[in-house]
Amino acid sequence: MPANRYIVLASRPTEHAELKHFRFEDAPTPNVQAGQVLVRNRFLSLDPYMRGRMSDRKSYAAPQPLDKVMIGETAGEVLESKHENFRPGDAVVGFLGWQLFGVTDGKALRKVDAKRIPLSAYLGVAGMPGVTAWYGLNNIIAPKSGETVAVSAASGAVGSVVGQLARLAGCRTIGIAGGPDKCRYVVDELGFDACIDYKSENVYDVLKESAPQGIDGYFENVGGDILNGVLPHMRAFGRIALCGLIAGYDGVQIPIRAPQYFLSSRLKLQGFIVSEHLDVWPTALAELRELVASGRLTYRETIAEGLDSAPEAFLGLLKGRNFGKQLVRLA
Amino acid sequence: MPANRYIVLASRPTEHAELKHFRFEDAPTPNVQAGQVLVRNRFLSLDPYMRGRMSDRKSYAAPQPLDKVMIGETAGEVLESKHENFRPGDAVVGFLGWQLFGVTDGKALRKVDAKRIPLSAYLGVAGMPGVTAWYGLNNIIAPKSGETVAVSAASGAVGSVVGQLARLAGCRTIGIAGGPDKCRYVVDELGFDACIDYKSENVYDVLKESAPQGIDGYFENVGGDILNGVLPHMRAFGRIALCGLIAGYDGVQIPIRAPQYFLSSRLKLQGFIVSEHLDVWPTALAELRELVASGRLTYRETIAEGLDSAPEAFLGLLKGRNFGKQLVRLA
Repeated sequence: MPANRYIVLASRPTEHAELKHFRFEDAPTPNVQAGQVLVRNRFLSLDPYMRGRMSDRKSYAAPQPLDKVMIGETAGEVLESKHENFRPGDAVVGFLGWQLFGVTDGKALRKVDAKRIPLSAYLGVAGMPGVTAWYGLNNIIAPKSGETVAVSAASGAVGSVVGQLARLAGCRTIGIAGGPDKCRYVVDELGFDACIDYKSENVYDVLKESAPQGIDGYFENVGGDILNGVLPHMRAFGRIALCGLIAGYDGVQIPIRAPQYFLSSRLKLQGFIVSEHLDVWPTALAELRELVASGRLTYRETIAEGLDSAPEAFLGLLKGRNFGKQLVRLA
Repeated sequence: MPANRYIVLASRPTEHAELKHFRFEDAPTPNVQAGQVLVRNRFLSLDPYMRGRMSDRKSYAAPQPLDKVMIGETAGEVLESKHENFRPGDAVVGFLGWQLFGVTDGKALRKVDAKRIPLSAYLGVAGMPGVTAWYGLNNIIAPKSGETVAVSAASGAVGSVVGQLARLAGCRTIGIAGGPDKCRYVVDELGFDACIDYKSENVYDVLKESAPQGIDGYFENVGGDILNGVLPHMRAFGRIALCGLIAGYDGVQIPIRAPQYFLSSRLKLQGFIVSEHLDVWPTALAELRELVASGRLTYRETIAEGLDSAPEAFLGLLKGRNFGKQLVRLA
């Protein structure tokens, strides 16, 4: 029974999430029962959806319970197993939360090949963010070669995969990201055709030049003013995959100013949650892993060191301070 | 060459459309050339899309040219034909505009059976409005028996067909209409399960009672505050067919206040223009005609008398003063 340390939700934010909403606790890990697995978490994934779970307003998912370990995806290794599918030393990915160790019945635990690509990549480019990009791009935007695809939060864990997959599909790709460093990365390392720095440029104005023919597919991770800037540039029969509204998570809702474009340009807008489309996961994960292994899909990580840094890193993520996939190294 | 009378667009409205934007003109009909047909228009259809054409802002369709006959769908009879497909006396529907007579090459003219159902019905329930309802309901909302379908402008030419087709498909149907007379008609004559009078009731509040399980499919003819009231009630995986934004045609755009519902309820919103889906027209028209002929699809018309009444009737349509399909009797 190793000594565990974990983070619980102490209270619910009414506006901005803050450090005070989290609390650290220490307790030994429970004994491993028949059918259970004890995992040492090596990496914790921090994701914007967690902000939604901290609220108890109506949502697609149940809220994070107060005083319980914060939900979160983790990658680690099996320490002890009384489950027939797992053995000590197995590299595994699961939802064990913001803690050093986790005991699970193995239902949501999957073994991964940490020799083919690095373990941490299974929390990003070859994990849930990657599949999110894969699903929204392939199943909602369904881009044709030669079309133009734009994506917000383009340097992030999801956006960076959207743009690279769209480029591999023969599309012209336009990223939207915050700051010159991220924009340089999006163009120089990820291979986008253009990137708009929403912090210093007006998205609507710049798109007149970077997408003079308009945008066929838009992958939305942000919403708010950026969505309002992109919408008038959507071409007839354009598709918008709505993956995130990070601008709205932290309290303030930003309206869609000009809904007439949905009609005048006959647009489709579709919101989705990747965990509801488990049928595509095996195909998507295998494809993403091989693209990473062969070097055709690149990625970047921001790694905070140690469990104690998780709350601060999470708040930074909500403010866009991370660069690529935000992780916490736990061991 | 009968003496013709017609209405042209005299100038473009910047805000509200007014009588001054139209002008009457008189001139003999042109001679019928080889391959042409002369039609006496008996009915002119007035439709909200015409307001959009009066503006020259970017849209899916070219603007109505100034000083030319206003665009509009018409039903009438062939007076003279030098076209092999048409003979004098044929009942026909076409886009001959706001005028008493029209000469056409016959390409957009179709013969109809004015004995099976009344001629005027081919401009409404068994014409473009009917096909609009049919397409949005079947191809975008795709309702399953037992689901709940809501529609705004429910007593109108499109909305009344949406609700009746949804009911025939086994759905619970909720209408939204303006005023107690229209609401009574929607429930008592069209057979909707409920109707909300948006003029005296708060759409959001009333839906809590009339759709306690939420709404699976929403057919939007109006937009604005009504859409904002419906959106929070959409169930997970709900579909919204966006057919019209009449609230926005006349100058003022009303934002979508809470776009987070598209994500939290994983909604699909799709705008469409029925004239771009000509492949479904033959199937839809035949189905609608037979439903009318057998009495399973009912409809109501508001008929303004005489061409001279057309502008006033059109402005009334934009304000929701019509009851059912708005027509002008020309002969």
